[in-house]
Amino acid sequence: MKLDHTARGVFPIAPTPFLPDGAVDTKSIDTMCDFYFSAGATGLTILGIMGEAPKLDADEALAISRQVIGRCEIPVIVGVSAPGFAAMRNLARAVMDAGAAGVMIAPPPSLRTDDQIVTYYHNAIEAIGGEIPFVIQDYPLTLSVIMTPAVIRRIVMDLPSCVMLKHEDWPGLEKISALRAFQREGSLRPLSILTGNGGLFLDFEMERGADGAMTGYCFPDMLADVVRLSNEGKRDEAHDLFDAHLPLIRYEQQQGVGLATRKYVLRKRGAIAHDAQRAPAGKLTETARAEIDFLLRRLAKHDPRARF
Amino acid sequence: MKLDHTARGVFPIAPTPFLPDGAVDTKSIDTMCDFYFSAGATGLTILGIMGEAPKLDADEALAISRQVIGRCEIPVIVGVSAPGFAAMRNLARAVMDAGAAGVMIAPPPSLRTDDQIVTYYHNAIEAIGGEIPFVIQDYPLTLSVIMTPAVIRRIVMDLPSCVMLKHEDWPGLEKISALRAFQREGSLRPLSILTGNGGLFLDFEMERGADGAMTGYCFPDMLADVVRLSNEGKRDEAHDLFDAHLPLIRYEQQQGVGLATRKYVLRKRGAIAHDAQRAPAGKLTETARAEIDFLLRRLAKHDPRARF
Amino acid sequence: MKLDHTARGVFPIAPTPFLPDGAVDTKSIDTMCDFYFSAGATGLTILGIMGEAPKLDADEALAISRQVIGRCEIPVIVGVSAPGFAAMRNLARAVMDAGAAGVMIAPPPSLRTDDQIVTYYHNAIEAIGGEIPFVIQDYPLTLSVIMTPAVIRRIVMDLPSCVMLKHEDWPGLEKISALRAFQREGSLRPLSILTGNGGLFLDFEMERGADGAMTGYCFPDMLADVVRLSNEGKRDEAHDLFDAHLPLIRYEQQQGVGLATRKYVLRKRGAIAHDAQRAPAGKLTETARAEIDFLLRRLAKHDPRARF
Amino acid sequence: MKLDHTARGVFPIAPTPFLPDGAVDTKSIDTMCDFYFSAGATGLTILGIMGEAPKLDADEALAISRQVIGRCEIPVIVGVSAPGFAAMRNLARAVMDAGAAGVMIAPPPSLRTDDQIVTYYHNAIEAIGGEIPFVIQDYPLTLSVIMTPAVIRRIVMDLPSCVMLKHEDWPGLEKISALRAFQREGSLRPLSILTGNGGLFLDFEMERGADGAMTGYCFPDMLADVVRLSNEGKRDEAHDLFDAHLPLIRYEQQQGVGLATRKYVLRKRGAIAHDAQRAPAGKLTETARAEIDFLLRRLAKHDPRARF
Repeated sequence: MKLDHTARGVFPIAPTPFLPDGAVDTKSIDTMCDFYFSAGATGLTILGIMGEAPKLDADEALAISRQVIGRCEIPVIVGVSAPGFAAMRNLARAVMDAGAAGVMIAPPPSLRTDDQIVTYYHNAIEAIGGEIPFVIQDYPLTLSVIMTPAVIRRIVMDLPSCVMLKHEDWPGLEKISALRAFQREGSLRPLSILTGNGGLFLDFEMERGADGAMTGYCFPDMLADVVRLSNEGKRDEAHDLFDAHLPLIRYEQQQGVGLATRKYVLRKRGAIAHDAQRAPAGKLTETARAEIDFLLRRLAKHDPRARF
Repeated sequence: MKLDHTARGVFPIAPTPFLPDGAVDTKSIDTMCDFYFSAGATGLTILGIMGEAPKLDADEALAISRQVIGRCEIPVIVGVSAPGFAAMRNLARAVMDAGAAGVMIAPPPSLRTDDQIVTYYHNAIEAIGGEIPFVIQDYPLTLSVIMTPAVIRRIVMDLPSCVMLKHEDWPGLEKISALRAFQREGSLRPLSILTGNGGLFLDFEMERGADGAMTGYCFPDMLADVVRLSNEGKRDEAHDLFDAHLPLIRYEQQQGVGLATRKYVLRKRGAIAHDAQRAPAGKLTETARAEIDFLLRRLAKHDPRARF
Repeated sequence: MKLDHTARGVFPIAPTPFLPDGAVDTKSIDTMCDFYFSAGATGLTILGIMGEAPKLDADEALAISRQVIGRCEIPVIVGVSAPGFAAMRNLARAVMDAGAAGVMIAPPPSLRTDDQIVTYYHNAIEAIGGEIPFVIQDYPLTLSVIMTPAVIRRIVMDLPSCVMLKHEDWPGLEKISALRAFQREGSLRPLSILTGNGGLFLDFEMERGADGAMTGYCFPDMLADVVRLSNEGKRDEAHDLFDAHLPLIRYEQQQGVGLATRKYVLRKRGAIAHDAQRAPAGKLTETARAEIDFLLRRLAKHDPRARF
Repeated sequence: MKLDHTARGVFPIAPTPFLPDGAVDTKSIDTMCDFYFSAGATGLTILGIMGEAPKLDADEALAISRQVIGRCEIPVIVGVSAPGFAAMRNLARAVMDAGAAGVMIAPPPSLRTDDQIVTYYHNAIEAIGGEIPFVIQDYPLTLSVIMTPAVIRRIVMDLPSCVMLKHEDWPGLEKISALRAFQREGSLRPLSILTGNGGLFLDFEMERGADGAMTGYCFPDMLADVVRLSNEGKRDEAHDLFDAHLPLIRYEQQQGVGLATRKYVLRKRGAIAHDAQRAPAGKLTETARAEIDFLLRRLAKHDPRARF
């Protein structure tokens, strides 16, 4: 089923599981898919930045996509960002043929002006074809491309196959408010907004109008709960749960070791069998692992899912 | 009294108080100094990035420095980063004459290689003179200059007037560990390390070997408590207090509105009379102010200092 | 006399002459002014990037401006780019009081989106006042700020005191054509366009519609000749003269040693007494000086002004 | 035959020929190879930045490599820069199996510190294997990665399979001198240095110690002549020929239209059948084409190869 603007809930950004020798860990792909489903995910996003996508070759990327799509009963979005449109088109078409719900496209770091950004998305959609639903990835902290709300509106209004924004600006609360205001005034059509940044602002993002989260925090079940509580209007409950996880969410924010932290906890939770990364890999020192264990023990007092 | 490597505790980064018309609010400078002193600060840092230093002209910068130094009974560090060495030297010498304890120097964003960074500090110290104690500001997230531990060691070992590192790398836990390991192995002389980043990692930074904090979080009294509890070995108490503040610390991390958040709370706490900024100013929307008030109300359940 | 959009010809970017000990060389300021006037300059621009402006303190910048303005019989534009608006306003007002024709403002490197750039110029003009004629400096290679023709048009149409573009995009030939097309279609008001980049594209820039050059090439007399020949429609003569100088123009383009090359030749030509720079200074090796001398000897076969 | 440090002469950076519909123009690959051979090339480099390598998918890149290697009687270097090591290894091994002489590796733009750069090359060589001769691409203007001579020395001395530097720093004359001085003092082993930057400094680069050129200027036959004349000690002849081409070399330097200029002239010279590029493509306006034709007519007075 194709992705559309009504998508809501939590689409975890899945890591790519590797064996200690660097080969793709296909067994863990299945357990990971099952883990996310059990955690309440309403969709799954693979081959994102945190998914170590650039470290895969074209055949691996496609094989992983097929396996995940085959295993999951929820919509799967595949990151198809690539240095060129030929590679992007190949992957996008192949994963859609395999049953993906849509694709996600990040702007290359070299883009600067409003027109450059809009033109890039025009070119990308001309390359992959206008029938494939796509997600804009707006992630200035890592990509150093800054899209104003007006630029996002231009892309959405120019390109009918744009159905979702992965909102990862930082800070971005006012950006959600601005986009939702565009919709109220009638200048922007419906658009799903799922938020990233490891969930660091999810509590308020939901209140500003987000439809959910698309991020890789190692407790997607917590993200799902916060989205649900927020939708039910249980503000204090949502914040209480969120705040209990915030020390760990914050710890995951460390660039370089963020993914290592995430894989370490996902392994502990049984989602994947190994926390290996391909080179270049951020590695946890013994001290760092002890810090994470300490945070998990503290978290376990508030959330039994952290007891293991 | 001049700054040396034994400096410890909390050196808040002070904002610069302005009147609504943009003039410097000299009355609030006094109340702010008193506020920080009462909060348990062991020193004060002015004219940093968060102090809107680039928005001041040379006369204003010096006048503010003199007033703060005159009012405070604790050591004052003055940020003297400037596009050129003539302006840096003038300010550095004038504030030292006025009684400052030392100066802080950030590398300009254009620096890339290890040698460029080290040479920059050599040139800067040649300009201001080797008798003025100085602080290295290591802030890659904003300055995009990346200093390895080995580069910091080169600067410290080459330049005897270097007495402190304002550690603001992100993530930076391993950097503290690496520098302390250099000292244990005898390749680095004693150096005070105070940490920044709004306090976002202070809990673990203390455990890694930091001597305290140098940051502008709007509850410096909490920073002082966490430093003290950590020094006393009361690990869980330190984390409990820290975690209660983390939702607000996190909120302050939003670039663009971080300083506005800080001034808003400092005004509420009576430290300054207005939360005005000079242009270009990040402004809080009504929604953002309500979010901060909500966070303060939640914080007040754990920390009575947030009750107002 | 204030600068307006009818400005034409060559406005050399003047270096700042220093004595070997780093003090401002006030005698050379006078000889340099006379040199540029004799070379056919129709105006002069001081305190630009090549003028080592960031290395001057506020008092020096003003004193140099006053001396140049007093000495020159041609309009003087003063670069007032600064990290903050307080310093920009002070310098802008003081130099206009001293008789400057206008000021030049470069965007700070942090700007990314179209709106950020336009807003910056709004803020800057609000700070210095709308009665001071100003020049936009469009220099992406060094400043990494990219202004589309449409962004320049917004600034020009929003701010009546904008009278000139220092065009230094690279490549920029199509940008000149685009701006002139805007004017033909009536969407852009009259605007003087002087080009930079050391003159590297001056031959074609004139043919695309530039009004002249604003750059620091060490033979401003050649620039004046090329502008004149081009205006007279003597295309091949213009290119012949230009091509004879191109090996040296090209040599000057080397970042780091470009200014050293320029000052070395200006000293040889008697414009300034010393080729000293303030730290951090790009220095010519003996080999580099020999290369420049070789280029001058070759140039002298075509242009007698290079015989010395 | 594998590449080693004795490589000299001209290794043109070949563009990738496309048909107007964007498909690879296999016929033109053959004519282009023959053109470069006739022009006096001693080697050929394909799939560089100017070769639009990122716009090719993995299968296309390999097919083009095989065709070029099969057609050429001179050593072929293949650019294997990729976002990840899996894709780099696959391409590197496949082209070496197909008979390539070596591979070229550029550092990714995210690298900053000396250690990051050196570590990157260690990881890359671990991925592709230590038996494949490789070329360091040092191109800060485009890649924004700055390698000091000492960093290049570390890479060369650490990794025996490094045999060549594609020197494309700007300015870079002193860098060549520094590396050759390292060799004279015995701290750097023999290394072939071929220079890039479109040939803009080739005249002096040869005099500083370069072994030749590796760049895509549309008259590789002129590059070969300048290298030869320079090696023969005919300094003025070398400069005379170089200077005649400099206006066009300079024109090609325009980012965005440089490749379009190059393909336009190569098509005129019969090397390729079409000047098409894949999106995103820099396009020549009618005015730009007329400017190039004008430059060719002027060049033809000095160099008969420009008569067509």
